[in-house]
Amino acid sequence: MSAQIDNVSVLKQASVYFDGKCVSHTIILENGVKKTLGVILPSTLTFNTGVAEIMDITSGICQVRQKDQALWTKYVAGDSFDIPGDSGFDIETIETVNYVCHYA
Amino acid sequence: MSAQIDNVSVLKQASVYFDGKCVSHTIILENGVKKTLGVILPSTLTFNTGVAEIMDITSGICQVRQKDQALWTKYVAGDSFDIPGDSGFDIETIETVNYVCHYA
Repeated sequence: MSAQIDNVSVLKQASVYFDGKCVSHTIILENGVKKTLGVILPSTLTFNTGVAEIMDITSGICQVRQKDQALWTKYVAGDSFDIPGDSGFDIETIETVNYVCHYA
Repeated sequence: MSAQIDNVSVLKQASVYFDGKCVSHTIILENGVKKTLGVILPSTLTFNTGVAEIMDITSGICQVRQKDQALWTKYVAGDSFDIPGDSGFDIETIETVNYVCHYA
């Protein structure tokens, strides 16, 4: 897993969610595809999706419960998980998570 | 002021300071120069500098007091200020600040 993403544009304005528990910066690849690069501090949060997402966990430890599911699944650096569109997930961040989010 | 910075590499790992009151991502320009892109949530914080820095405020409202100075100076979107090397500053963030930090 590379530590950086090359040849991108980055938006100067970050997005701040949940009083700063989640902060993300948007990047735009050469082909116009947008991704977000973010941090989630220790917390339990609920995110809703519009389009489907793939979350790459690049550092930290969390567990995630997909919407309407009972099961929590643990993810650490190097893991990824998918979230369907028009859905959501609960995430309990145990150690501060860095992530890259890809959109469908 | 452009809303984005083009042709950069971005590090996936953010830096988190002061329990998340400040979160920044490092970018590397084509010429190898590093800058950071960050957010400061409402707070009063003290930063120390190693090398000299230029802070471009891209959104929000803050006031800044240079190390060993009495005077606070207000900065808003579009403003910049310099901090000498081996020095520091207090920053009171009144409305969440986005910044780009350039290093000497």
